[in-house]
Amino acid sequence: MTGAHGYSSQKDNYTKRLRRIEGQVRGIAKMIDEDKYCIDVLTQISAVNNALQSVALGLLDEHLGHCVSHAVAEGGDEADKKLAEASAAIARLVRS
Amino acid sequence: MTGAHGYSSQKDNYTKRLRRIEGQVRGIAKMIDEDKYCIDVLTQISAVNNALQSVALGLLDEHLGHCVSHAVAEGGDEADKKLAEASAAIARLVRS
Amino acid sequence: MTGAHGYSSQKDNYTKRLRRIEGQVRGIAKMIDEDKYCIDVLTQISAVNNALQSVALGLLDEHLGHCVSHAVAEGGDEADKKLAEASAAIARLVRS
Amino acid sequence: MTGAHGYSSQKDNYTKRLRRIEGQVRGIAKMIDEDKYCIDVLTQISAVNNALQSVALGLLDEHLGHCVSHAVAEGGDEADKKLAEASAAIARLVRS
Repeated sequence: MTGAHGYSSQKDNYTKRLRRIEGQVRGIAKMIDEDKYCIDVLTQISAVNNALQSVALGLLDEHLGHCVSHAVAEGGDEADKKLAEASAAIARLVRS
Repeated sequence: MTGAHGYSSQKDNYTKRLRRIEGQVRGIAKMIDEDKYCIDVLTQISAVNNALQSVALGLLDEHLGHCVSHAVAEGGDEADKKLAEASAAIARLVRS
Repeated sequence: MTGAHGYSSQKDNYTKRLRRIEGQVRGIAKMIDEDKYCIDVLTQISAVNNALQSVALGLLDEHLGHCVSHAVAEGGDEADKKLAEASAAIARLVRS
Repeated sequence: MTGAHGYSSQKDNYTKRLRRIEGQVRGIAKMIDEDKYCIDVLTQISAVNNALQSVALGLLDEHLGHCVSHAVAEGGDEADKKLAEASAAIARLVRS
């Protein structure tokens, strides 16, 4: 089945949130261009980081509940691969 | 002097980096729209978070070296206010 | 089966690492008691945070590969519960 | 003046908090030794990370308000050195 992922049913939700985040990043560039106060720029950056983390945690939750769960139910090498891949993605998120 | 901040001499550098980050976020929305693999989306989100953190740390460094340092050299309430404000911004970054 | 978890085979490894971390925290308290330089104290705190994160990521990896995988293979409510619980733990780690 | 730092007036507060954190880490080792449930162990690790971050942010706030401010008020190379050192410590905290 092509193109179906854990997040597929929520696709519109995620793309909408990401377009808003894109707008926030554009707003930050504008703030710098207009010499806005540094602390206000930093506040916006923290807000974008939180919004991105929230998107990432949602995607990860659905990935564990779909792709990883399907692989685990089937067992074998694919299950191990999917679990290792998920752990590596979690580590990148925790450390970013 | 209006519009001069710690980061002013680096303005082009920062706006350029933020435009690149904006493009990356747009790319993530497109990945989701095209049903790309969840783990690849998460990898891109971690990359954007790291890039934003790096921008924030640069802005903060220049803020401490300019605005906060000027206020501290003058002393008084303004110095205390700037220091408290910087600490609060650092806390938001550490926790985001 | 009582007392068997994903991390059981690695128990000695984890308790050894945690005893080392405990010693590092005791060392940080001593540094403060002896008026050591603040930046050196902060460096030690960052090291402890990294060491704890690394323990947490290891535990989580084994939890996904054992408890969560077993529940998923059996299916039903327990699988959903375990997945939700793991996602919540990941969110706490990412935000801490 | 030897041994006086930004945090000196708060020394007892910090050492008390660190002894509590040390006890929490010892408790985590014990949880693993007693095969406690993985998710409960992870919850404790997140709590310790948050407590350590809070200590670090307090120390940093006082460091900026004392050591760094004194150096900035005096100016010269020492001010630049202290600012660079503080920025590097902030970066380590943000990334840990």
